[in-house]
Amino acid sequence: MADSTRPEARIPRGFIDRRARDLVAERAILDAVSSIYERYGFERLETGAFEYADALGKFLPDADRPNEGVFALQDDDEQWMALRYDLTAPLARFAAQNWETLAKPFRRYAYGPVWRNEKPGPGRFREFVQCDADTVGSARPEADAEIIAMAVEGLEAAGLPAGSAIVKINNRKLLNGLMTAAGVADEGQKLAVLRAVDKLDRLGRDGVRLLLGEGRKDESGAFTKGAGLNAAAAERVLAFTAAGVGGRSETLAKLAEVIGGSEEGDAGLAELDAIDRALAGLGVGPDRAVVDPSVVRGLEYYTGAVFEAELLLSTTERFGSVGGGGRYDDLVARFTGERTPATGFSFGVSRLAAALRAAGRDLAAEVRGPVVVIAFSQERMADYFAVAGELRAAGIPAEVYLGSSGIKAQMKYADRRLSPAAVIIGDDELAAGTATVKDLDLGRELAKGVADNAAWREQRPGQQVVPRAELVQAIRKILDGRP
Amino acid sequence: MADSTRPEARIPRGFIDRRARDLVAERAILDAVSSIYERYGFERLETGAFEYADALGKFLPDADRPNEGVFALQDDDEQWMALRYDLTAPLARFAAQNWETLAKPFRRYAYGPVWRNEKPGPGRFREFVQCDADTVGSARPEADAEIIAMAVEGLEAAGLPAGSAIVKINNRKLLNGLMTAAGVADEGQKLAVLRAVDKLDRLGRDGVRLLLGEGRKDESGAFTKGAGLNAAAAERVLAFTAAGVGGRSETLAKLAEVIGGSEEGDAGLAELDAIDRALAGLGVGPDRAVVDPSVVRGLEYYTGAVFEAELLLSTTERFGSVGGGGRYDDLVARFTGERTPATGFSFGVSRLAAALRAAGRDLAAEVRGPVVVIAFSQERMADYFAVAGELRAAGIPAEVYLGSSGIKAQMKYADRRLSPAAVIIGDDELAAGTATVKDLDLGRELAKGVADNAAWREQRPGQQVVPRAELVQAIRKILDGRP
Repeated sequence: MADSTRPEARIPRGFIDRRARDLVAERAILDAVSSIYERYGFERLETGAFEYADALGKFLPDADRPNEGVFALQDDDEQWMALRYDLTAPLARFAAQNWETLAKPFRRYAYGPVWRNEKPGPGRFREFVQCDADTVGSARPEADAEIIAMAVEGLEAAGLPAGSAIVKINNRKLLNGLMTAAGVADEGQKLAVLRAVDKLDRLGRDGVRLLLGEGRKDESGAFTKGAGLNAAAAERVLAFTAAGVGGRSETLAKLAEVIGGSEEGDAGLAELDAIDRALAGLGVGPDRAVVDPSVVRGLEYYTGAVFEAELLLSTTERFGSVGGGGRYDDLVARFTGERTPATGFSFGVSRLAAALRAAGRDLAAEVRGPVVVIAFSQERMADYFAVAGELRAAGIPAEVYLGSSGIKAQMKYADRRLSPAAVIIGDDELAAGTATVKDLDLGRELAKGVADNAAWREQRPGQQVVPRAELVQAIRKILDGRP
Repeated sequence: MADSTRPEARIPRGFIDRRARDLVAERAILDAVSSIYERYGFERLETGAFEYADALGKFLPDADRPNEGVFALQDDDEQWMALRYDLTAPLARFAAQNWETLAKPFRRYAYGPVWRNEKPGPGRFREFVQCDADTVGSARPEADAEIIAMAVEGLEAAGLPAGSAIVKINNRKLLNGLMTAAGVADEGQKLAVLRAVDKLDRLGRDGVRLLLGEGRKDESGAFTKGAGLNAAAAERVLAFTAAGVGGRSETLAKLAEVIGGSEEGDAGLAELDAIDRALAGLGVGPDRAVVDPSVVRGLEYYTGAVFEAELLLSTTERFGSVGGGGRYDDLVARFTGERTPATGFSFGVSRLAAALRAAGRDLAAEVRGPVVVIAFSQERMADYFAVAGELRAAGIPAEVYLGSSGIKAQMKYADRRLSPAAVIIGDDELAAGTATVKDLDLGRELAKGVADNAAWREQRPGQQVVPRAELVQAIRKILDGRP
């Protein structure tokens, strides 16, 4: 093939290839969280990757791209389809489409990739995996509380030690009450206030104060226009966001002082109060879920309570949200015209995997390669396969080396695959009915300086000859890390 | 919202929503097959959904749509991207992109959705799940044999009883040898012959004879132009396809008579002979894998051995392929210019799930709902949650009904969720420290006429009052189906 006609081997911008290390951790999280969802009576649903563009709606925050941040294309009947940007919009479409025949309330969980046509950047991908649970058709605050309880238990089931993460709860109605109290009337100004508050973690109070007022210039010199509040109103907003210290009922009492009296604010406080009581009934104390009025979710479809799960780590690295959700009572009504209460939560699975690594729970560290049977001679392949077959039958991953390189390269291959051991069966071994086992785990441990060379070598031979009948047992000893 | 502005709630054409029944079966298959792949030392890889269009290439058969059957769109830097149509093309791109740093041969497995922009029809979807294993960087026939062995074991691990499925093996080189023997020279004519042979299952020998000659008119009157072979050549092709009866070496001997002597035919026969011997070494007998010269895979990138897994059921329903694969030694070279031997196999996961159902192994039948705790009164929600919490802590899926309907509707809800039992805790039960358990499994069994009404009722009460401390035990008895 001529050079000029060859395509370049490259992955599209903003997408990544993921190997065993990442995928093992992801699968473990999905299994753990799914099992919590199922224990709460949620049923799995998987919708297609595409939705009609009008069904998805336009709810993405800060859409800086055409098609409002989605990947869209026109079908051959000229209808616009787009890849889902989350799992909630497709659920709303599914619930509306099947409402008459569903057992209600409809409790469903789902996981899978979602796609956002955003500007890619370091650590910012255009495809990522979410894992959601939602209840459609219940207006009860208990439904919100249950969603929060599952988020809390999901974090723990995924492997985050109790106390290392927390779910923060807020309510859009409180924010609306605050808007009334701060004299904000216009929708655009309101959105600007919400976006400013959403940046509290990243910019701090001083940065947010600027964004609530005239605006803020960032380090690069770029100017972001502010919400245009006067100083007193901005302080009121900041006071509101600072009320989230202490237990849930304590915070609610403080908030009542700041925004109590506005109709919507009082409604929001009453909902949070009911959620607080239901959480107590579900055994979720203030060490696992708090009321925090600084929480603002980016998506625009939320109508009531909103939730955000955050990692609490005393590391130097800042660590943001690992998931979030809230109540969206109008999303199904977009289709049916009938208000249908709904609430849910979504884990960002890669964020959660990163959180687990930050908390010292790196599941990827447990990835191991197969036992490699060294291939000496084409004539003996059947013998090598017999050995590999024995190991597999005993549940031990094993392979015969199938490349064309020599013994040294085969050993290097086994080491790079993180194989626990290599098995060598030459003519001598075949004649004697034995196998030589090379302990590659040991080699890696010694290289890391973890083990004391002399002491280990005494009980754990780097290489040993065993009778064929004892091969499985010898490999098991290495796998178990015991001499 | 005004009616005119409401979007219609509908899933795009050719896509489907899948609920627990389908997903439980799919997950079980993916787990079973992945575990076989891992036991053979294959490492999981997940590439992104998109590839650059030039990287995907144009290998789809019968592309009847623009963009050669893929979903494509232009990125904002004007490059064309397309959703993957299989898992092999992205693997070739990945292998080429990372060739220098990979441990070789590179053994990877993968599963996930693929997308084809085809005309949707009944049972023909534009999104479906594949589960693949491939070895890149080994020219050895043992690599092919191992892929076949994994396909065979995968079918069994997924739940197909031994003997109910078989892997058929062929080699593109044999077909080329046949072409030489039949006097076919032109590429277009060759492709027409392959496509005719590929329809043997569907059209039978007479239909294929027409397609090998001038052409064939189908029932609708539509005419498909044939390959234009003369009668003698067409008979030779048909004789070739009929050689696949008996053991592998028997078939190979028959084939040598038909096509032996052509250089490529002999090369193909030698490869199949080596695969046959390696399969024997891997313990895969002719009851699980046969040589069948009628097998033609649709994808155009295969260069040598090709495989196809088929269900063998004595049902009236025809049942085609549940997976297939082959050797594609040129796919990585598209990028690098260097020939890189590769071989692999792909399961069609929904096809495999359908095959399992046809074989009477319906995993979906095991799907059950959660225990439903009936909600009588808002004041008692904490008590209901406590009961549901107890059941969950014992590993039993449970939920409190969170809708707004009365007791009768709640019971109906529980039944529609396929709940094994409903728990009723009214004022009497609360005062007495008891719970009423309604056995919904029993109700469904009786409704099906499976159980003898009187005999069952004697040992298994439809409804019973138990002390709260014995609730978990009472539910377990129902779940275990034992009185």
